[in-house]
Amino acid sequence: MIPDLPILPHPADPRLTRRVTGTDQTGAPTEIAVVEERPLTIFLNSQEIVTAMTIGDYPDYLALGFLRNQGMLKADDVVTGVDYDEEIETVVVRTERATSYEEKVKKKTRTSGCAVGTVFGDMMEGLEGLVLPEAEVRTSWLYKLAREINTTPSLYLEAGAIHGTVLCQGDRPLVYMEDVGRHNAVDKIAGFMFRHAVPADDKILYTTGRLTSEMVIKTAQMGIPVLASRSGFTAWGVEIARQIGLTLIGRMRGQRFVCLSGEDRLIRDAALTGEDEDRKHRRKGAGDD
Amino acid sequence: MIPDLPILPHPADPRLTRRVTGTDQTGAPTEIAVVEERPLTIFLNSQEIVTAMTIGDYPDYLALGFLRNQGMLKADDVVTGVDYDEEIETVVVRTERATSYEEKVKKKTRTSGCAVGTVFGDMMEGLEGLVLPEAEVRTSWLYKLAREINTTPSLYLEAGAIHGTVLCQGDRPLVYMEDVGRHNAVDKIAGFMFRHAVPADDKILYTTGRLTSEMVIKTAQMGIPVLASRSGFTAWGVEIARQIGLTLIGRMRGQRFVCLSGEDRLIRDAALTGEDEDRKHRRKGAGDD
Repeated sequence: MIPDLPILPHPADPRLTRRVTGTDQTGAPTEIAVVEERPLTIFLNSQEIVTAMTIGDYPDYLALGFLRNQGMLKADDVVTGVDYDEEIETVVVRTERATSYEEKVKKKTRTSGCAVGTVFGDMMEGLEGLVLPEAEVRTSWLYKLAREINTTPSLYLEAGAIHGTVLCQGDRPLVYMEDVGRHNAVDKIAGFMFRHAVPADDKILYTTGRLTSEMVIKTAQMGIPVLASRSGFTAWGVEIARQIGLTLIGRMRGQRFVCLSGEDRLIRDAALTGEDEDRKHRRKGAGDD
Repeated sequence: MIPDLPILPHPADPRLTRRVTGTDQTGAPTEIAVVEERPLTIFLNSQEIVTAMTIGDYPDYLALGFLRNQGMLKADDVVTGVDYDEEIETVVVRTERATSYEEKVKKKTRTSGCAVGTVFGDMMEGLEGLVLPEAEVRTSWLYKLAREINTTPSLYLEAGAIHGTVLCQGDRPLVYMEDVGRHNAVDKIAGFMFRHAVPADDKILYTTGRLTSEMVIKTAQMGIPVLASRSGFTAWGVEIARQIGLTLIGRMRGQRFVCLSGEDRLIRDAALTGEDEDRKHRRKGAGDD
């Protein structure tokens, strides 16, 4: 059964941040919170697939989402178990179907130096014939979502140095995931949707990160028709979004934004006050980027 | 021979950005510049090692730096050629020494899902017994560097969605590299230093990105004793910096910063005016992060 929504960050969780002491510009001792970064090795049945660096929350969603986004878990795969062992930092996903991805994993070797490069080759394959659902996204939703997400207590606001991705429906944030690993936050969302069979048609994915080719591809593979971010675009991200008809909205700042793909889903229903993003709602964490 | 310094970004280079047309919040057509993102496959002699997603400038430095930071190029290796073929997007690094990294590359398979995870395991090995040089870093240098770097014309200011890393000496930026791939900018610096046998003892590495374990490890492997960033820290980044005695300075904003490791190299010689980072010098690109 689906857990109570929304799922929000737990900046107070002692496992996710650490207090460290240093000095500031005056030489005075200062104590700040920094995010944890720990390895998690993901197994699919008997095969070791990957080790990801993660803050360590939701290892089950991260494992499921990573395997799903890699195409190693099929949409109709029956997961018989997800066993997380905190001690040895591993999570094992068990499926009814016997799996073997030696070849697929070996293939990745050659691109392992760059996660973007890695995943990209494999993932494009999954996109042939993909048709994203018709849907609408209202600017009034986008403005409310951005305001809410940027002011929700988070590890980002507490410690910075982390990315956030939020699964939204209309103007409501449903699942807000954060992680140090650039794509772990997205994979955790994918894992949540897979685990609880959450429909993607009426969803919007909001990310704090850049709209790269990999972000666009992952969103499309999850079947989500709209991807929005306060960050900027890369050329391939735009090109792929246009090929597959994904609505791509970036550079969201206050009421300003740029839509570079899938304009047809966008409904500009919000009154433009011309106000810029005010300080209170600006996403300014402890050590930005 | 070393090219003329400083090496600065070329935001006007038509190969690095693309003009794309979209709409803004009012529905009006708007044209913006977005950074290119293209694959580059790196060969070491006859072996294909990796495919990285890069903006595509300096493929030779990227290849050399990646291989060096992976420990596949030794400090004393004689490079007999670096052949870049733009058409097929490959670069081949040739060495006098016969190389074979089938095993090393295979080993990476298991962590290929996450570049951080991937490189990490391998790279820690290179750090045993590493001793970083004594050096000094003055706050007056840091303030001047941050101001200069944040106001230097760059792809970041032009198009956003990109990371920058700058090799500095005293208060002078020497080599300013940018890239979409989170660590390509650092690898390009490493390639530059390797190719031109640039000493690391008196250098400072400034990055716009987060101070993660991998950034700290790469900086240490390059032999650079000081790493500074306007972004935040991760717990492992701090832990490793302290283990190896690297000076780690983050959250640089105007005159404010936090030093979490290697305090001994830091000289606070700048008068503190108490002024915060003023608008003119704030790093605000086209689509931040």
